[in-house]
Amino acid sequence: MNNYEEYKTQLARISDLSYAGAVLGWDQETYMPAGGAPLRSRQLSTLAGINHDLVTAESLGKLLEELEKDATLDKKQKGNVLQTLKDYRKAKKYTREFVEEMSLTVSESFNAWHEAKKKSDWKIFAPKLKKLLELKRKECEMLGYKEHPYDALLDQHEPGLTTKDVEELFIEVRKSLVPFVKSISAKPLHSNAVLHQHFPKDKQWDFSIHLLNVLGFNFENGRQDLSVHPFTTNFGATDVRVTTRVDEHNLSDCVTGTIHECGHALYEQGLPEADYGLPSSEAVSLGIHESQSRLWENNVGRSLEFWKGQFPELKKMFPEQLKNSSAEEIFSAMNVVQPSLIRINGDELTYHFHIMVRFEVEKALFENKLEVENIPAFWNERYKNYLGIDVPNDAEGCLQDVHWSHGSFGYFPTYSLGSFYAAQFFAKAKGEIPNL
Amino acid sequence: MNNYEEYKTQLARISDLSYAGAVLGWDQETYMPAGGAPLRSRQLSTLAGINHDLVTAESLGKLLEELEKDATLDKKQKGNVLQTLKDYRKAKKYTREFVEEMSLTVSESFNAWHEAKKKSDWKIFAPKLKKLLELKRKECEMLGYKEHPYDALLDQHEPGLTTKDVEELFIEVRKSLVPFVKSISAKPLHSNAVLHQHFPKDKQWDFSIHLLNVLGFNFENGRQDLSVHPFTTNFGATDVRVTTRVDEHNLSDCVTGTIHECGHALYEQGLPEADYGLPSSEAVSLGIHESQSRLWENNVGRSLEFWKGQFPELKKMFPEQLKNSSAEEIFSAMNVVQPSLIRINGDELTYHFHIMVRFEVEKALFENKLEVENIPAFWNERYKNYLGIDVPNDAEGCLQDVHWSHGSFGYFPTYSLGSFYAAQFFAKAKGEIPNL
Repeated sequence: MNNYEEYKTQLARISDLSYAGAVLGWDQETYMPAGGAPLRSRQLSTLAGINHDLVTAESLGKLLEELEKDATLDKKQKGNVLQTLKDYRKAKKYTREFVEEMSLTVSESFNAWHEAKKKSDWKIFAPKLKKLLELKRKECEMLGYKEHPYDALLDQHEPGLTTKDVEELFIEVRKSLVPFVKSISAKPLHSNAVLHQHFPKDKQWDFSIHLLNVLGFNFENGRQDLSVHPFTTNFGATDVRVTTRVDEHNLSDCVTGTIHECGHALYEQGLPEADYGLPSSEAVSLGIHESQSRLWENNVGRSLEFWKGQFPELKKMFPEQLKNSSAEEIFSAMNVVQPSLIRINGDELTYHFHIMVRFEVEKALFENKLEVENIPAFWNERYKNYLGIDVPNDAEGCLQDVHWSHGSFGYFPTYSLGSFYAAQFFAKAKGEIPNL
Repeated sequence: MNNYEEYKTQLARISDLSYAGAVLGWDQETYMPAGGAPLRSRQLSTLAGINHDLVTAESLGKLLEELEKDATLDKKQKGNVLQTLKDYRKAKKYTREFVEEMSLTVSESFNAWHEAKKKSDWKIFAPKLKKLLELKRKECEMLGYKEHPYDALLDQHEPGLTTKDVEELFIEVRKSLVPFVKSISAKPLHSNAVLHQHFPKDKQWDFSIHLLNVLGFNFENGRQDLSVHPFTTNFGATDVRVTTRVDEHNLSDCVTGTIHECGHALYEQGLPEADYGLPSSEAVSLGIHESQSRLWENNVGRSLEFWKGQFPELKKMFPEQLKNSSAEEIFSAMNVVQPSLIRINGDELTYHFHIMVRFEVEKALFENKLEVENIPAFWNERYKNYLGIDVPNDAEGCLQDVHWSHGSFGYFPTYSLGSFYAAQFFAKAKGEIPNL
């Protein structure tokens, strides 16, 4: 076997192990019985530790250094090697003990968040989050950064992105978004009452499956299940799992959730199977990943053309609820601009204020200017300030999202970035494809 | 950390990895989309290889040899160490390459069997089975045996059991069973028509969940799903998964399947959590495992007392179908003795002829007296001979069970052993507990 083949073999083995962990993670969020949680945490932690051993193996490092100098590699091969070398050097900054502890803490945090959200009790989640933040602060130091510790975390999700970049971006965004939202709010509000009737769970589920089919989700290489928080995961390009959730009194929750996750899934299902294990088979960044989910959710899923196509099927599912409705009404309802509590139900415009709040919370946490106990108050104050609304409880406030419990800090800005990328991709596509 | 603590830590890590593989296996048989199969096979194979590295690590061997001589260990600790040392020495007979190849072949065989069964086409499964048998024959040589290569396989499932033991046992069984079945067949047949009405899937599912609850299955530490072939798996004592299947025209399929798997699950849920990773937290043998599933299935689940208790709930689920029925009728129907095609639907008496057929096939295979191509003919001839019935197709014949595709040879005799153990346990319990 030549060096490049040996490299591919080693990377495929590493992916086998990472994807095995992803299967355990998927099960944890979909089907695992509550009693399985503690053991699952340690099983995931052990997998993470073994994975760390593989990605930091001296033999891999030596191989990569040889390949770096190998003049016979083509451009793509060279790109893979350089990316893996970067990943290798980054992984070397961690110890196995740290990786295992982080994994264990993440699993425990997820379970605590799950319970805290159900009971809307920040105190259940707070101690786990504290421990997680301690580890995350250590991680920033281990990884290193130029200006701001939070830069080290942003870079994990969008390579090269800094705290300063995000701040500058959001200044620009606020500059145009605040007056824009104001001007819309001054006009009479469209009604979205049509989406807030009673829509039985089974029928919503059937419609979400219909949507996945229509959007090109390949069920031969994937499936949909239910979870507390919708997500997409994959175990290679040929097994991509999405989840959704159903609110019987809010049709848009399941619909936009499904379209959003489908966007992620289409990206994963489209990655090159033959490159299994190599960087070229993986998403380039989370921002780009989000550009796909946000493109389908907003640029497609909130368009009149889309609802003209889908309304007949929707009406078939809910003939009573929609007997006096139309594609135009659904389109309008899906585009009501109205400050709201829950990010994933947010409209296209106010959405970014949710991201700004979270960014400011995270920034304050990593500048040691905010204590975990005070997050709910800080959060609620910001929601009042940016969105003008009162947060009635933590389940609908700072506990709404799963990400912190996954240890994902520096992640949320990619939601806004993804939306901005999506807008650009879609504008370009509209320019190039007549009658898109 | 003292040696015994270090040993416990190492074994718990090994269990983490084994159970991770079990999660992937569970998903493979329940929810995995078809396209995920090839990658899943390689992911399982890599896990198996890494697991092999851990169970054969020189550091573990050294630790075990020191612990073997450690006079401070108590009886249970000593038992654990000796069992692990035995496992270690056995594992050392395998190479990692062999383990990975076996795992890969097993996954591929499972996928082939799944398709072959659906299409009732032995030719789809035969090439995979051939490859599997080659590996299994190699395994027998690697493990070593005194008299018969098949002894090495029997020993994996029931320590110490030999081909000769099984042959002698079945001679005894046939001696009493053949005339017994004949005498019953001479009498007018009870009817089991009541079980062969149309029973909608959802209601059968609900009844199976009811049964699990009644039998003491802990849903906090487990769950039930659907699969092609019912099975039980676990990822520790606090996450035990059973599966069932539903035939809308045969109520007993789901009922006996659920009770059987519940028996396995109760055993697993009852194992000591605190001993996670140690032999003392694991089943002692497959025969004993089967004694629990068979005890609940037959000694409890086919008793008049059981149906007196469960009939009211059953009737609530199926008021139309059972409007003229009674607990006594269900009890009779569940105990009809009648040669049949499918082992897991077999009555208590003819059941063992299914095992004998499989044993004879396997024995012939490992004596190189039977070619894979000729299994269907051999099988069908034996069914005619032992049970007097014609096998209409391979799906209901030699493709009916999943086990060969798992590489499980030498496994089936434990079904009979389990039944015999169960009868003894139950007789003893009846003697000791008045009004059991």
